Amino acid sequence: MEIIHWKGKIMIVIGELINSTRKKIKEAMENKDADYIRNLAKQQDEAGADFIDVNAGAFIEDELEKLKWAMEEVQAVTSKPLAIDSPRGKAIEMGLGLHKNGKPMINSITKESERWDELFPLVVESDSFILSLCIDNNGIPDIADERVKIAEGIINDLTKAGKPIEDIGIDPLTTPLSVNTNYGLVVTETIEKIKKNFPEAKLITGLSNISYGLPARRQVNRAFITMCMVYGLDGALIDPLDRVMMSIVRATEALLNKDPFCGNYLKDYRQGLIAKE
Amino acid sequence: MEIIHWKGKIMIVIGELINSTRKKIKEAMENKDADYIRNLAKQQDEAGADFIDVNAGAFIEDELEKLKWAMEEVQAVTSKPLAIDSPRGKAIEMGLGLHKNGKPMINSITKESERWDELFPLVVESDSFILSLCIDNNGIPDIADERVKIAEGIINDLTKAGKPIEDIGIDPLTTPLSVNTNYGLVVTETIEKIKKNFPEAKLITGLSNISYGLPARRQVNRAFITMCMVYGLDGALIDPLDRVMMSIVRATEALLNKDPFCGNYLKDYRQGLIAKE
Repeated sequence: MEIIHWKGKIMIVIGELINSTRKKIKEAMENKDADYIRNLAKQQDEAGADFIDVNAGAFIEDELEKLKWAMEEVQAVTSKPLAIDSPRGKAIEMGLGLHKNGKPMINSITKESERWDELFPLVVESDSFILSLCIDNNGIPDIADERVKIAEGIINDLTKAGKPIEDIGIDPLTTPLSVNTNYGLVVTETIEKIKKNFPEAKLITGLSNISYGLPARRQVNRAFITMCMVYGLDGALIDPLDRVMMSIVRATEALLNKDPFCGNYLKDYRQGLIAKE
Repeated sequence: MEIIHWKGKIMIVIGELINSTRKKIKEAMENKDADYIRNLAKQQDEAGADFIDVNAGAFIEDELEKLKWAMEEVQAVTSKPLAIDSPRGKAIEMGLGLHKNGKPMINSITKESERWDELFPLVVESDSFILSLCIDNNGIPDIADERVKIAEGIINDLTKAGKPIEDIGIDPLTTPLSVNTNYGLVVTETIEKIKKNFPEAKLITGLSNISYGLPARRQVNRAFITMCMVYGLDGALIDPLDRVMMSIVRATEALLNKDPFCGNYLKDYRQGLIAKE
């Protein structure tokens, strides 16, 4: 695992807040409210995010223009790499061209034929991390083993084409507990099985989906991140401004004996990144 | 498992706050500050504790008198059963005689010969839950398998003498991460192995010990409780007034698919027991 890239932290945090499906972000993108976007980028950076996700997908007509504007505003205030968040080849291609700092993450590819065929060359040719969702033409499987099968297909196809396995992120696909109370365990089983077969691939998930439809979502997310880390999760799209969540991430790294002498935990505490309450 | 006793919750919460090793409690016991003790008992009850722990062990000379006073004050304001917390047979014997509501928990026995011999008859003869620590004459083992071996001895001896297995709680013994960063995993391995061999025994731990010597202890405790629940923990001594902790416990029950339709989580939310932030 490319520990150095993640600054010695075990868990990769992708700040999820600059996403146009969120009402305030959509408005800020519409009104070109640069301060709002810049501030949110800076706050996520300072809170410890390793990547800043940028998504303008809610704009069907002018996603490219909005994505370009947002990426430029974000990159004006942070030197963190971005997760370029779109299902569309044209947006990803433009995003890769605009990307400035470090190695970007493409968020995301799936095994749905059209999306796969469109994005595959970009993923292989660029020096990028790729986040790949366990979805194929039949949709999202309900069962862990079928998700694992899709992941294996993605990893095999990408590595055969020359993509280094350590640049491949697999999203086990966090589906909401409010839809099916078995989905938490489906996700952890998927993580465990993929990690066993491909220890060098990165398991990364859009974690906050777990609590969709439930009240006090933060509490569910906080519990779920520890659960997923027990089974081998390497990273997550989360709200890094939830300081309790970030503290729990660092505490879990220590509890899993991945943080010698609790060094990262204590360092983050001294830097004011661990919440006292 | 005696789910009904725990009011349909999966995780047993033992409110740990009325413990004379805490400075304010010791003072309140010295000064017979009934309001302070009663208030803390009531608050823990209302926050969802299933048992209220009462410990007067810091008083070497007059533990019995202080324990009696504290138990009476606590039982004046709550109908929850108590965890009678002492290593001494005389204190436990008195406590069992004073106990009013439901089935008490004896906290705790060990396999150290003197303590074992003194407490064993009381444990077997009383209608009580017994919390048993994985310690023998050689102290606390560093290795999970040796802790498991002690637990097996405890369970076998108690069940042979007629103690129902579902009344036996085993504490894997949470030792501080600040002493050894492998202790988190030693505890989870111990839980997993005992649970596999004795699924009907209750795995219960003094969880807050994990964070002894670290800053922002709550964050470590919150992460650790989810970790332990993944491996089968049934209960813990914790601070039930940490609302985020209690919320994480209920969220973890749901995530482990032990709370059909997230019913308990939603009910606790409606009752104001789940923290919004």
